[in-house]
Amino acid sequence: MEKLYEGKAKIVYQTENPNHVIIYFKDEATAFNAQKKDIIEGKGILNNKISSIFFTLLNQAGVKTHFIKQISDREMLAYKTKIIPIEVVVRNLATGSIVKRLGIPEKTEFNPSLIEFYYKNDALGDPIICYEHVLVMKLATEEDVKTIKEMALKVNQILRDFLIKHDIILVDFKLEFGKLDDGTIVVADEISPDTCRFWDAKTGERMDKDRFRLNLGDLAKYYQEVLERIEK
Amino acid sequence: MEKLYEGKAKIVYQTENPNHVIIYFKDEATAFNAQKKDIIEGKGILNNKISSIFFTLLNQAGVKTHFIKQISDREMLAYKTKIIPIEVVVRNLATGSIVKRLGIPEKTEFNPSLIEFYYKNDALGDPIICYEHVLVMKLATEEDVKTIKEMALKVNQILRDFLIKHDIILVDFKLEFGKLDDGTIVVADEISPDTCRFWDAKTGERMDKDRFRLNLGDLAKYYQEVLERIEK
Repeated sequence: MEKLYEGKAKIVYQTENPNHVIIYFKDEATAFNAQKKDIIEGKGILNNKISSIFFTLLNQAGVKTHFIKQISDREMLAYKTKIIPIEVVVRNLATGSIVKRLGIPEKTEFNPSLIEFYYKNDALGDPIICYEHVLVMKLATEEDVKTIKEMALKVNQILRDFLIKHDIILVDFKLEFGKLDDGTIVVADEISPDTCRFWDAKTGERMDKDRFRLNLGDLAKYYQEVLERIEK
Repeated sequence: MEKLYEGKAKIVYQTENPNHVIIYFKDEATAFNAQKKDIIEGKGILNNKISSIFFTLLNQAGVKTHFIKQISDREMLAYKTKIIPIEVVVRNLATGSIVKRLGIPEKTEFNPSLIEFYYKNDALGDPIICYEHVLVMKLATEEDVKTIKEMALKVNQILRDFLIKHDIILVDFKLEFGKLDDGTIVVADEISPDTCRFWDAKTGERMDKDRFRLNLGDLAKYYQEVLERIEK
């Protein structure tokens, strides 16, 4: 199969159907714009399985995603999309970069949830951008941004409600969006503990990539725990 | 007189009238969040005179400012305000931080002009913020932001039209806004080559603080040239 793209955590392959791709999940873990790197045995399998569950949930709830089906431990079949170069971050509680950057107190509750845009550009370190920059840089149209924001809030509501039933708090997460050939905007990329912050609702423990960022260890163990809870 | 506040370039004193302050312009030049510092003999006098001309122009055009009158070489009398902790940057042409941060090509024309907000907080390095952060952090209300944006665009139009007649291109500038006792929002702080980028319309030479930031030298000479042109 032709390799279309290799990123930090995934490889995208073209299939025989021109509209379908296979996404292969690697074990590489990176943080801080890839300045920190490691291999976490089995992470790719866990992220593929967890992402597949979340995408299935979203598809069933009527939110369009690129996900078609899981086809192996490390692979999912997905619609081919043109990725919109904006990372959309939805925050329910303040932690991480927003605390450091703006001095907002840790665990401040955002109500309504806060949506942030980051320019998906590794060379520039994915800088934060505002609505005006999106338009000036022609990253998306006004209408696209409206759609993306609505979809991001809907994804937040669905995942948050689902996760809390499994004693997981959805603190924040990053979404990427892609466009299908016909212009339809879909949720793309992955939705996993690599791209979300999950806190154990009972113990407050981190069950996400912060274990790697903050050197807390046991990353795969906690990703496994997330998977087991949401599979129930 | 009681010193109310001392900043990097100015000192604010209380006068006998509780609603009036005196703003004293110092010769200190700072850049890169005060990591680079120097004394530029006479800069304070030039900035006071230039600011006074711009504020007078704005007052006459019906844009409310804190400026009452120039009272000495280094001092202006102004209304006392509660500063809104947002630095409002208006950009007509891309240069400086936006080029570095977002990879927008140098001299890209913004039409309409681009408005950016920065959180006025030295300890955090005045980070860029978006509309949503302004509301979440309660830095200003929705109505205040609307007023501030309208005023910033009006200031841009007035200064741009005025300066080009004197062969100066208004590339970008930073405004601060304050609230009077009765809640009226006014343009505050200063409007000078320390807070604006001015390019000579004929030669393209920089006539502003970039001479200091970029070690181009002759800062006072170029500030003096700006003053002489706009005094004509």
